[in-house]
Amino acid sequence: MQMESHSELFNEIDEIVHPRSIAVVGDSPKGRLYWLKSIVESGFEGPIYPINPSVESALGLKFYKSLLEVPEEIDLVIIRVPAKVVPEVVKESVLKKAKCIVIFSSGFSENSEEGAELEKKLVQTIRGTRTRIIGPNCMGIYCPESKISFRPDTCMEPGPVGFISQSGGHAINFSIVGKTLGLRYSKVFSYGNACDLDSPDFLEYLAEDEKTKVIGMYIEGIKNGERLISALKKAAKIKPVVVWKGGRTEAGARAVASHTGSLAGSNKIWEAIFKQTGVVSVRGFDELLDTISAFVSCPPTTNRKLALVSISGGSSVSNTDFCVEEGLEVPELSRETKEKLKGYIQEMGTSVKNPLDLAGSYNYPGVLENVLGILGEDRNIGSVIFEVQIHYTSLVEKLVDIPISNIIYGGMVEGCKRVRDKSNKPVLIVIPRTSYEEKYKEVKEIFIKAGFPVFLSIASAAKALHNTIKYYEGKEKIASYNPTQIIF
Amino acid sequence: MQMESHSELFNEIDEIVHPRSIAVVGDSPKGRLYWLKSIVESGFEGPIYPINPSVESALGLKFYKSLLEVPEEIDLVIIRVPAKVVPEVVKESVLKKAKCIVIFSSGFSENSEEGAELEKKLVQTIRGTRTRIIGPNCMGIYCPESKISFRPDTCMEPGPVGFISQSGGHAINFSIVGKTLGLRYSKVFSYGNACDLDSPDFLEYLAEDEKTKVIGMYIEGIKNGERLISALKKAAKIKPVVVWKGGRTEAGARAVASHTGSLAGSNKIWEAIFKQTGVVSVRGFDELLDTISAFVSCPPTTNRKLALVSISGGSSVSNTDFCVEEGLEVPELSRETKEKLKGYIQEMGTSVKNPLDLAGSYNYPGVLENVLGILGEDRNIGSVIFEVQIHYTSLVEKLVDIPISNIIYGGMVEGCKRVRDKSNKPVLIVIPRTSYEEKYKEVKEIFIKAGFPVFLSIASAAKALHNTIKYYEGKEKIASYNPTQIIF
Repeated sequence: MQMESHSELFNEIDEIVHPRSIAVVGDSPKGRLYWLKSIVESGFEGPIYPINPSVESALGLKFYKSLLEVPEEIDLVIIRVPAKVVPEVVKESVLKKAKCIVIFSSGFSENSEEGAELEKKLVQTIRGTRTRIIGPNCMGIYCPESKISFRPDTCMEPGPVGFISQSGGHAINFSIVGKTLGLRYSKVFSYGNACDLDSPDFLEYLAEDEKTKVIGMYIEGIKNGERLISALKKAAKIKPVVVWKGGRTEAGARAVASHTGSLAGSNKIWEAIFKQTGVVSVRGFDELLDTISAFVSCPPTTNRKLALVSISGGSSVSNTDFCVEEGLEVPELSRETKEKLKGYIQEMGTSVKNPLDLAGSYNYPGVLENVLGILGEDRNIGSVIFEVQIHYTSLVEKLVDIPISNIIYGGMVEGCKRVRDKSNKPVLIVIPRTSYEEKYKEVKEIFIKAGFPVFLSIASAAKALHNTIKYYEGKEKIASYNPTQIIF
Repeated sequence: MQMESHSELFNEIDEIVHPRSIAVVGDSPKGRLYWLKSIVESGFEGPIYPINPSVESALGLKFYKSLLEVPEEIDLVIIRVPAKVVPEVVKESVLKKAKCIVIFSSGFSENSEEGAELEKKLVQTIRGTRTRIIGPNCMGIYCPESKISFRPDTCMEPGPVGFISQSGGHAINFSIVGKTLGLRYSKVFSYGNACDLDSPDFLEYLAEDEKTKVIGMYIEGIKNGERLISALKKAAKIKPVVVWKGGRTEAGARAVASHTGSLAGSNKIWEAIFKQTGVVSVRGFDELLDTISAFVSCPPTTNRKLALVSISGGSSVSNTDFCVEEGLEVPELSRETKEKLKGYIQEMGTSVKNPLDLAGSYNYPGVLENVLGILGEDRNIGSVIFEVQIHYTSLVEKLVDIPISNIIYGGMVEGCKRVRDKSNKPVLIVIPRTSYEEKYKEVKEIFIKAGFPVFLSIASAAKALHNTIKYYEGKEKIASYNPTQIIF
């Protein structure tokens, strides 16, 4: 699916996320130099021009009194001055031929009639010029590739996840929490009130962007519904698009109005849109993160049959309930698989079946590796969910007083790799909460480093896996229904 | 609701959970001395008699060749020998007039026809004697008060939570994970195949036990449905009972049969039972833990109206959605409350409303304390859910390079205390995942130490709160419908 040439919109936004120089207007030591520190600590390599008439210098950077005083060209302007001063700074940015203005300041259409008028002025100022606006009331751009970020503590290693968020808070939370789950980002956009560039623009851009393999979205409302539908449809045909719509309930919709000044719209209409466009719709932050983790780390499958592996019979029962209620299947293993497994599984407390509770065999790395490998080879099985209970392994380590746990986790990882790499099937790792909290981080990182998605519960792993299956099924349906429509 | 005298069953089980001496049959260094270590490290103060003809001594304890060789009385016998040897040990236990036998060994009715026959023999052996059996295929008893446990790493500080679990794994997970959420236990029972003592026995006991304030249950199946219904009804009138039924789905029910040899029964019948008996029914491990945390730490309320406090507008929107979808309400604040709040909330990016996003005011401890206190005083508001986003505070700390975070969390705790202690309303703390993982544990413990329940997401906090509200509403309904029935 090679793109022959890029659209004009793609080129425009691509230049915006790869600025050669940045000006920050209104940052000050009183404001903790938030934006300058974010840009500097993210490693931006081009010139940075801080603008503030009442500051001489900070962080080793010379401050300018106004944008117009900067002798060089400015690609990106970030504004954090009070709302009523913003129009003036926007005018100066246009005069400086900036490619984009990120307006962090709030107090516009989300706030009052007066603010809405102010916002209209901004749009009038840039109309007909080459300058675009992201915001107001937003965090703007996080792009590891060009070493810019809206926080000084995001991960600057680029990766395959693109994210578009109407909320600045969710853009931050997604970037920060996702990095501990092993997610790495191509481009993250927080666009707030969307007075100019809006979600369909960013969506079309990320759909065309070869570096983005999965797209996540948090939307509260939309100005041009038709354009969004067309952009969703187009994007979902190329790569997975996972959408979280905020303001589903009436009270939530009221909160939307005072947050980004948007109209939340009817939930039923949104659900219909998501269904028709082939995107994956999720209900909250955790499901969004989990589903994107699954898309990033799992080989695509439309097989709903899975093998469940855990240490205890009680877990097996309830894990099965969750998977089945999610629409997955926990089928019998083939006779051949059962025979093969018998050679590896201890008798006491364990029987060879799906769900498989390993009981006494749980802490034997060789057993684990082979058991997982054999399950992966079963033709009935499309994927494996493996539940890691840290306090069982930590207790055995404590009882024998020998540091064996890393050997055990090593065996688990090798087994999981056999399923994923030899049988090309998804493996999802569930690590529930435990009292061995220091160990938790360590074990989570062992699996993440090996490229496996890690979840907090079976319910969330099952939901994430099912979301990916629904997406791939939808693609198959669309492909078989009208193949001419998916050619680009 | 003072009990005048205890039932016979209560006295029988109360003696069982307070043994004066314990024998462990079949433990060995090869079996990592699991049971002996569990008893010894839990601090049991009475005599411990290890039985194993092929071991001389271990852990400084002399081993006996058989139970009959022990000269003193034995109250509790824990058996971990192969299934076929168990009947002989049970016979000896009866001869020694043991009050209870915990059979850890599996390989009985959960395993085969042959195992079911073996299990029948055990019951025949104890019939007509004073000896009772817990199990087989179970973990038995964890009772901090009498310093006995089924793990060497459970918390031995007693508390108000009783738990009854057909699954040993879930009994362990509940005890281990719960301690990190601040839960403290009165008595935990894992009863497996329930060949003699069954869930209604433990339930009746915990209902009568003054030290138990909340009861949790994990059930897979039941032998005497009528007795369970009557026990549930009786218990739920005295204290909250939270029940998680495993094997809701057909595949889950199949897993039940091979786990504890039980018949899972129709899910519809179970749901009807839970509704009629006034217990709270939950769907999984996390909801069970969360709901019990809420019962333990929240003043009772039937008011569904809550105030939501977070740092960002995006969180406010989606948090509102989750609460409303859970059946709670996020109402407007009273005019008086709004006026009072205006004095404390910064203008930039924040408006005074419910949900309240604190934005720039989030990291000011004095503001936080007063804002929460004022919300608690609003007559419209029945409870507060407060979302703590660690990475915002940690970043501010990083930017100003002064260790301010503990002062900020102190302000949050003081504010939450004003709501709970002055206004007598529940406060639920949500701490979502973050990349500042070391700080996570620290902050969680600050809130838990102050007696607040801590949740991983708004969705789980809202569900837990709603579960408690439904329980208290049910009690009110029952009370107003037929008050004579609730007198004991």
